[in-house]
Amino acid sequence: MAHYFSSDFTLGILGGGQLGKMLLTETRKYDITTCVLDPSTEAPCRIGANVFTQGSLTDYNTVYNFGKAVDVLTIEIENVNVEALQQLQSEGVKIYPSPTTIKTIQNKARQKQFYAAHNIPTAPFKVFCNVENLKEAVVNNEVNIPFVWKAARFGYDGNGVKIVRHLTDLDTLPNEECIAETLVPFKKELAVIVARNPNGEITTYPVVEMEFHPEANQVEYVLCPARIPDEVAHKARTVALQVAEALQVVGLLAVELFQTQDDDILVNEVAPRPHNSGHYSIEAAYTNQFEQHLRAILNLPLGNTDSKTAGVMVNLVGAEGYQGKVIYENIEQIMAMSGVTPHIYGKKETRPFRKMGHVTIINEDINQARAIAEKVKQTIKVIA
Amino acid sequence: MAHYFSSDFTLGILGGGQLGKMLLTETRKYDITTCVLDPSTEAPCRIGANVFTQGSLTDYNTVYNFGKAVDVLTIEIENVNVEALQQLQSEGVKIYPSPTTIKTIQNKARQKQFYAAHNIPTAPFKVFCNVENLKEAVVNNEVNIPFVWKAARFGYDGNGVKIVRHLTDLDTLPNEECIAETLVPFKKELAVIVARNPNGEITTYPVVEMEFHPEANQVEYVLCPARIPDEVAHKARTVALQVAEALQVVGLLAVELFQTQDDDILVNEVAPRPHNSGHYSIEAAYTNQFEQHLRAILNLPLGNTDSKTAGVMVNLVGAEGYQGKVIYENIEQIMAMSGVTPHIYGKKETRPFRKMGHVTIINEDINQARAIAEKVKQTIKVIA
Repeated sequence: MAHYFSSDFTLGILGGGQLGKMLLTETRKYDITTCVLDPSTEAPCRIGANVFTQGSLTDYNTVYNFGKAVDVLTIEIENVNVEALQQLQSEGVKIYPSPTTIKTIQNKARQKQFYAAHNIPTAPFKVFCNVENLKEAVVNNEVNIPFVWKAARFGYDGNGVKIVRHLTDLDTLPNEECIAETLVPFKKELAVIVARNPNGEITTYPVVEMEFHPEANQVEYVLCPARIPDEVAHKARTVALQVAEALQVVGLLAVELFQTQDDDILVNEVAPRPHNSGHYSIEAAYTNQFEQHLRAILNLPLGNTDSKTAGVMVNLVGAEGYQGKVIYENIEQIMAMSGVTPHIYGKKETRPFRKMGHVTIINEDINQARAIAEKVKQTIKVIA
Repeated sequence: MAHYFSSDFTLGILGGGQLGKMLLTETRKYDITTCVLDPSTEAPCRIGANVFTQGSLTDYNTVYNFGKAVDVLTIEIENVNVEALQQLQSEGVKIYPSPTTIKTIQNKARQKQFYAAHNIPTAPFKVFCNVENLKEAVVNNEVNIPFVWKAARFGYDGNGVKIVRHLTDLDTLPNEECIAETLVPFKKELAVIVARNPNGEITTYPVVEMEFHPEANQVEYVLCPARIPDEVAHKARTVALQVAEALQVVGLLAVELFQTQDDDILVNEVAPRPHNSGHYSIEAAYTNQFEQHLRAILNLPLGNTDSKTAGVMVNLVGAEGYQGKVIYENIEQIMAMSGVTPHIYGKKETRPFRKMGHVTIINEDINQARAIAEKVKQTIKVIA
C-alpha cells in the first residue's frame, strides 16, 4: 500500500493552467506533494503547488528532467513531449495517461483511425497529409462538400475545426495534416467522462449536454444531466466505456459525442484528463472530476459519480473588444443569484474569447438551473 | 464596487492552520490575493497563500506590521493581539470580525457577561479572578457541586473545561481567571453557523448536532441536519441570529448551543470564524462555510445555506499511543465507501488526539450517512 498523504510521494503535473489549478485544489485536500511544469510564470498553478517550475512542455530535456523527480506523472494538456514520457516510463516513472494513449489522442487522424480499428462508432472520415491532397480529393469527388475539416494537431476550443461549405473555403485552410469528416446532422452534442484506475476499476459520470456559442464555436452551456431519453444516455455511457477500455486509459477520459437524428451515438473526440464538460461536478457531483482523476491515477478506489443536484456550467470568456487587465463586471450580481458559484482562473489579462473562468449553477431542477444560467450569461461581462 | 478578483486587493489571514487552509481554497477559486501569518513554518497554509509569513499572532509589532500591508484582515483563530488590531482599525484597515468582537469572545467570562447583558439565554454562571476565590465560593455554598469549570482564556477543543464533581477536583484546577457554570443536563449539543456581511445581510445554516467522544471531550461526529423537531431547530436558529446581531459580527459566527430537557436553547459558546461544526458544508451545502466567510467579509451577497444532501463529519484525530510521522492507516478502505471524502490537513507529525483531518460522509439519508460514518471511524486510524 502506498502512502500518498502527508508523505514524500510526489505527483508531477505537466501543464499549469486552470485544469491543473483545480487539480491542485484536490491535492491540497489530500496533502499530496506536487510539482507543476508550465511555460508561463503567470500560470494559474503558480500558487498551490509545492514546487512550480517554469519550462517548455514540448522540449524533451525539460520534460525528462522534470519527470525524473516525481513518482507519478500526469497531464492537464495533451500537447507535451511524448518521447520524453516514453523514456521516463521505461525508467520506471508511472505516467497516467500513458504515453501511448497521449500519442494516439494528440493527433486527430490517429485518434479517428483508432476508433475505426476498434469498431467505435464515429463519423466517416479520410486522412490527408496536406491541404493539396485534400483539394485533389475534393476535385475527384472522393470528398464531398459540405464536410468538416479538422487539423490533425494542436486544435483546441474549436480552433483547428472548420466546416467547408464552398470550394473557396479550401483556400483558407492551413497546409498541414488534416482529416475530412462527413458533416453529421446531429440533435445534440453530448459528453461522458469515464474514470479508470490501474486495477481496471471503471466508472462513468452522467451524460452532459453541450450548447455551443453560434459564432465562437466555444461551449456556452454544459448541462448535467443531459435532457435526453434514458436509452440514449445509456447508449452514450456504453460507447464512452468502450473507448476507455479500448485505450486502456488510466485517469479520466472525457468522451465528446454526437447524438444523431436517429439517436445513434458517434464519438467526436476525446481528452485523457479533466475536461471543461466536467466542471459542473465540483458543485453538483458526489465526487468531482478532479478528485476522481487523482483517485484514478493513484490507484485509489473510484468515488461515486452520481449528482447531488442538477448543474449548468457557463464558460466565462473574454468579451469581444476588450484586451488587458481583467475586470469581472457585475460579478456581485450573479453571486446574489441562488446556487451560483464563479470560478476565476487567475489569468491577469483578458482577450476576446479567452477562457477566464466558469460559473456553475446548481439547482434541484435542471430547467431552473438553465434559466438562471442564462441570466448569469446576460449579467456578467469579462472586460478590461 | 470593489474588485477583489485577479486584482491588487489583498486579504490578510491571522493563523495558518486547517481553517485557514480551507479558506485559502476559496480564495484560490476567486483568485483573491492572500497573505497568511502563522508562528509555524510547517503550518497547513504554507502552501496556497500568495505570501506566507512566519511570526507570532500575539506579538503587537508582528501583527501590526502584517496588518498594515493588507486591505481586509480576518482570523482563523481568536488568540491574536487585539491591541494591534484596534490600532490597525483606527488607521483604516478593515478587520472582520472586529477587534471588539474578538476581545469579547477571547475571554469566556466576558463572553458570558455579554450574553447576560443582551438577554441571550445561557447557563447561569459566576466569574472568579482566580481559583482561590472559586474555592471560597464553593465553601460558602455560593457555587454548588457539581458545576462546570471553564478557564476564561485559551481553551479549545475541550481543554480548559472540566466538570467539578468532588471538592478534591478543585485542587487540580490551574490558578487563573475562570467561570463556574451550572451543569445543565441537556438532550443534545447543537450548533448553528450564522453569516453576516457589513451591509447587515444575515443568514443561518441548518442546525447541526454534535456527538462527543466520551473520554477526549472532542467532537466525534457532526450531523447535518440535527435529528431534532422543527420547532427546536427554529428556536436554535433564532437564538443564533440574536447572538450575531448583538455582536454585530461580520463574517461567520459559529454558535454552540445546548438543547435542554425542556427543549429550551442555551448558548454555550461562540467562535467568530469558520468552525469544525461547519466542515460538512464543503460537500453538503450549496455554499460552504469558507466561501460564505469570504462573501461576508468582502461584503459580497451571501450564498444559499441550504444542504444538497445530508452530511456527517468525523474528526480524524491522532490515535492514543502514537507520536511522530503520520500514517493514515486504511484510508483506501474508507475511500471505497460511498460518499466518503477525507480531508488531510497536512500536519506532518501526529500525537494523541491532535486534529489531523476530517472525513465527510454525504448521503440522501442522514441515518445512512451516520451508519457509514461509524464504519469510517472504526476503519481509519491515524498512527505513526
